[in-house]
Amino acid sequence: MITRQDCEVRDQEDPLFELRHQFDLPPGINYLDGNSLGVLPRATAARVQEVIAREWGMDLIKSWNTAGWIDLPRKVGNKIARLVGAGPDELVTADSTSVNLYKVLHAAAQISKADAPGRRVIVSERSNFPTDLYIAESVARQHGFTLKLVDTVDEIPAALNAELAILMLTEVNYRTGYRHDMKALTAASHAAGALVIWDLAHSAGALPVDLKGADADFAVGCGYKYLNGGPGAPAFVWSHPRHAERFWQPLSGWMGHAAPFQFTPDYRPAAGITRYQCGTPAILALSALECGVDTLLAAEPMGGMDALRKKSVALTEAFIALAEARCGEQGVRLSSPRDANQRGSQVCLSLAAPLHEAGYAVVKALIARGVIGDYRAGDPQRLDEFPHILRFGFTPLYTRFVDVWDAIEHLHQVLQTEEWREPRFNQQDAVT
Amino acid sequence: MITRQDCEVRDQEDPLFELRHQFDLPPGINYLDGNSLGVLPRATAARVQEVIAREWGMDLIKSWNTAGWIDLPRKVGNKIARLVGAGPDELVTADSTSVNLYKVLHAAAQISKADAPGRRVIVSERSNFPTDLYIAESVARQHGFTLKLVDTVDEIPAALNAELAILMLTEVNYRTGYRHDMKALTAASHAAGALVIWDLAHSAGALPVDLKGADADFAVGCGYKYLNGGPGAPAFVWSHPRHAERFWQPLSGWMGHAAPFQFTPDYRPAAGITRYQCGTPAILALSALECGVDTLLAAEPMGGMDALRKKSVALTEAFIALAEARCGEQGVRLSSPRDANQRGSQVCLSLAAPLHEAGYAVVKALIARGVIGDYRAGDPQRLDEFPHILRFGFTPLYTRFVDVWDAIEHLHQVLQTEEWREPRFNQQDAVT
Repeated sequence: MITRQDCEVRDQEDPLFELRHQFDLPPGINYLDGNSLGVLPRATAARVQEVIAREWGMDLIKSWNTAGWIDLPRKVGNKIARLVGAGPDELVTADSTSVNLYKVLHAAAQISKADAPGRRVIVSERSNFPTDLYIAESVARQHGFTLKLVDTVDEIPAALNAELAILMLTEVNYRTGYRHDMKALTAASHAAGALVIWDLAHSAGALPVDLKGADADFAVGCGYKYLNGGPGAPAFVWSHPRHAERFWQPLSGWMGHAAPFQFTPDYRPAAGITRYQCGTPAILALSALECGVDTLLAAEPMGGMDALRKKSVALTEAFIALAEARCGEQGVRLSSPRDANQRGSQVCLSLAAPLHEAGYAVVKALIARGVIGDYRAGDPQRLDEFPHILRFGFTPLYTRFVDVWDAIEHLHQVLQTEEWREPRFNQQDAVT
Repeated sequence: MITRQDCEVRDQEDPLFELRHQFDLPPGINYLDGNSLGVLPRATAARVQEVIAREWGMDLIKSWNTAGWIDLPRKVGNKIARLVGAGPDELVTADSTSVNLYKVLHAAAQISKADAPGRRVIVSERSNFPTDLYIAESVARQHGFTLKLVDTVDEIPAALNAELAILMLTEVNYRTGYRHDMKALTAASHAAGALVIWDLAHSAGALPVDLKGADADFAVGCGYKYLNGGPGAPAFVWSHPRHAERFWQPLSGWMGHAAPFQFTPDYRPAAGITRYQCGTPAILALSALECGVDTLLAAEPMGGMDALRKKSVALTEAFIALAEARCGEQGVRLSSPRDANQRGSQVCLSLAAPLHEAGYAVVKALIARGVIGDYRAGDPQRLDEFPHILRFGFTPLYTRFVDVWDAIEHLHQVLQTEEWREPRFNQQDAVT
């Protein structure tokens, strides 16, 4: 079994270790929740302070020109593009993931109607992140489409049929960490005559993404998870250049206009991805997001996302091995794919009977010990297939191998001492 | 004529003068552009720093519960509600003004179709802020409505007819500063069988607004103008409680769900205004916005928005009197309503022939002297009706009477010296 000393050696030998110094990590905290909210980069506080005190406070309205505020959505977008295999000026930061998904679903529906008028089905996974499904439900309703949800990954191939208009998936499932094969599914959807939208919420900054290489149609993603942009950071949106001029944008705000400062009463969409901008860009939040994205670009000289992925896989493999060796007899089960190729940068565990309802309290007990993961409830009717989940995210920019070892040791102790039975660990929080 | 000494006395006697100390104003700057971007409150930098360093940096994901992040859109919304005559839990901060306008236009269209199915016209002003018109064009297209634009205020009564579904106006026109009579127009629209949407971009924090008293239907507003929330601050949205449950929200993101943390695949809208939330709230930006809104609530013990309005009117009256007395012979003309009741908290000037094309350069020359206003181009074909405009916003929280006097003195000198003819003042910026 892997010892803590082994982990210390691996950290010492880790060529990416120094990237950890880009962050202000709270003392005593073993943070395995960067898939929910990324940690604070050291540069962020000073940068946001500069934007507030100098750019806003002193230069005021002039900063739209002199500080480049007006170009910030494109500038940060171009940085994210380097992480996800998009070309220059193809990706922009704007609004939230939900709002951006609304935009690309409308675009895809319009293009599908034009190119393949008989197709009226949007397919997604029932276990996709709910906001994606809620937004798809809305767009389906507006376009007279039907949203069909598959229960398992195995049902997807059969869904790529003559009625399919749009396949909409989150590349890495938020619950299980299952990673779809973006390239294969995109090719299969195209072969079936359909378009594909990828949500990169748990991919961007977590693993290499190659949107152009996969020939994807549309993508959206989140700024506050692996991109470390801060709570509620702006999201991003990309469309393949072949689609860029082929749709009308329902959220036709002035920042997507071809000439916003001509103040003309008629909407004329900007060329390319700019039409995905809508209202006035959120400068404070975008400035923080840029600092977050920069922490990932700092890995480029060391091999970039490929190198980070290699470390991520090593971290998750170690975590799984230790969880099974140390906690398997305590009822801990792996609920993420065992094959690293099918896994994102997170590992989900579940608890076998008689502990299958204890997950929430176990996560709370771990948090009290400084090990931050989170909990996602399963389906009470089908706990075998959809168990309650203890979710742990591994962010290779700052997670150490000793963190992996320590987390499992704490999990072992929480189960052994049964401290999770304490009432304080069984009180439901508003946000889980 | 008003002397600078008169202005000094008025500042000394101003019971609201101390409110100015809430802001970090740049030295040597006479800022008359708070209608475009409000100034920096003193509290903001420290508050945002606390959110970044402690709430995000140290407490991380826990802050959704412990720091009240999840309630911030409602908390800040309830503060704004006090400024615009909305009831508790009726108003929420979310997204941008453009996105919020999209939401309320969709809601109004649905309700209109249900209650008055024959009505299919949205009426607005051609001189409304363009993003409002672009979004209305989009929603009209989706619902099979027609957007009709009136050229002058006088045409509005005739437009309140049997085909009208929705009247959509910005209470204070961004170009001219013309203030509509919200109560009368709302009553007339209701009498005509139509709904009314008010954009409060140039009203909230600038003058008293009484949404409930006017019996308005929907409202949206901007966080970064008179609310001092910072560049690109989140916007707000309100609907009258009678409508709250009567529409389906197309931007059906998870934060508008009745139980977002149950992660269910089907959308079930939250009760009331909460369904206007969409994606994850922008915590850094909302924290800054809250500081901005607090600078207005600080006026409550001194008479609140009524007292601020009284000062605002005094400032704009003094500005107009001085502009005409000191610069009238130089060709300066008033392009805002002379009647204070028909005017927001801004005054627009224009230049008569032969200087009618000099406005942009004059504004740039004023900026070089530290007097910050802005310029809005007119209609080159109809400069008599729609002249190029020199726009000056008066924010009674921090604008002094001496600022008014000094601004006019600089305008007089810019015109007298003809320094505006310098080439550097005639170069177009990207953002105006």
